[in-house]
Amino acid sequence: MKIEGKTGHPKIEYLQPQEIEARSFEIIGEELSQRGIALKKEEEAIVKRAIHTSADFDYAKTLCFSKGAVWELKRLLKAGADIVTDTNMALAGINKNSLARFGGKAHCFMAEEETISLAKQRNTTRAAVSMERAAKISKPVIFAIGNAPTALIKLYELCMERAGGNGWRPGFIIGVPVGFVNVEASKELIMEMDIPYIVNRGRKGGSNIAAAICNAALYQL
Amino acid sequence: MKIEGKTGHPKIEYLQPQEIEARSFEIIGEELSQRGIALKKEEEAIVKRAIHTSADFDYAKTLCFSKGAVWELKRLLKAGADIVTDTNMALAGINKNSLARFGGKAHCFMAEEETISLAKQRNTTRAAVSMERAAKISKPVIFAIGNAPTALIKLYELCMERAGGNGWRPGFIIGVPVGFVNVEASKELIMEMDIPYIVNRGRKGGSNIAAAICNAALYQL
Repeated sequence: MKIEGKTGHPKIEYLQPQEIEARSFEIIGEELSQRGIALKKEEEAIVKRAIHTSADFDYAKTLCFSKGAVWELKRLLKAGADIVTDTNMALAGINKNSLARFGGKAHCFMAEEETISLAKQRNTTRAAVSMERAAKISKPVIFAIGNAPTALIKLYELCMERAGGNGWRPGFIIGVPVGFVNVEASKELIMEMDIPYIVNRGRKGGSNIAAAICNAALYQL
Repeated sequence: MKIEGKTGHPKIEYLQPQEIEARSFEIIGEELSQRGIALKKEEEAIVKRAIHTSADFDYAKTLCFSKGAVWELKRLLKAGADIVTDTNMALAGINKNSLARFGGKAHCFMAEEETISLAKQRNTTRAAVSMERAAKISKPVIFAIGNAPTALIKLYELCMERAGGNGWRPGFIIGVPVGFVNVEASKELIMEMDIPYIVNRGRKGGSNIAAAICNAALYQL
């Protein structure tokens, strides 16, 4: 791959996105080996896609999976579970056609009027209100949280409140908010519960990572 | 910030997003100092927002600015320039209300029928076709490229083709695709031209970074 410079055309091979993606995953595999990192077979596709979307190999060390998480995530998707995100960016990144093949729909309530006015009224965050609204969806829901620690905190609270009650449970939590305040603690909270999860321990994550994890699972079905 | 565990409520302070953001930027500032990194005053807001959106301090070292880039980016936004992205994720992440205040609009042509069919016909990428379509916009355009190296390559080709002709030029290029194939080379290509740019050298970047850079500039106006 050589670039000729100012006067000529680039000597970059003009590859189709699928070819770029295939080659990228090969490179990621090779560099994981060079780093002496061996991924669990069932987690491999998800970890590699997180690295693919960020070029950050830290995800190979920090992504945490509850026991059987990937199996459960795929089972839910296949059964037509919905996905609820905490950003319209994550919503935009999720492959909604793949999801729809199984009957699932992706939602983000963050920018809706109802969410905004409820959050103001109650002096809470839009992310918290969005989680409450999502908890009313009458089918299994996969939560894909890439931004707001308050979304994870609210999910924890909803589970605790209802632990002795009618027993609402999120189907699955992808807990990968990014940031510097409350983020790490909110992720640890999710890992304390007995809800199936994929969580990225530490500060890193993001809407792109949340979407990448959803897509990696969808593409394996 | 202490978590009480399974039986109790989290002892996480329930902060509003604005407070979380303010505190986050303080932490980023402190940790940059601890790392001995001093940012240029005019570039600070953009670099910090890239770190804020990724929790990755590498951006303090790899973000490259052409001379006067931030001044020019703000000037264009203030004058009502449009933004064209190469993903709907970046489009979703850009604060379109802030942009509209100055008369600008954000576009992504990637998923449009016309783009898809033209790319098939000509055996090229949707990103390349999107750039050609964007080049027909009759006002100054800021390109915010977070994903496709072929978008950057096409921008380079369009500039070269027309260098002796009617002189179409992108107003500004935010060149931050992420990835392992052609990505680094395509970014170097952009930095060879005399178009104002912000480029993240190396493999890292993404739609989230592209949107963060746009928003950081918008929030300073």
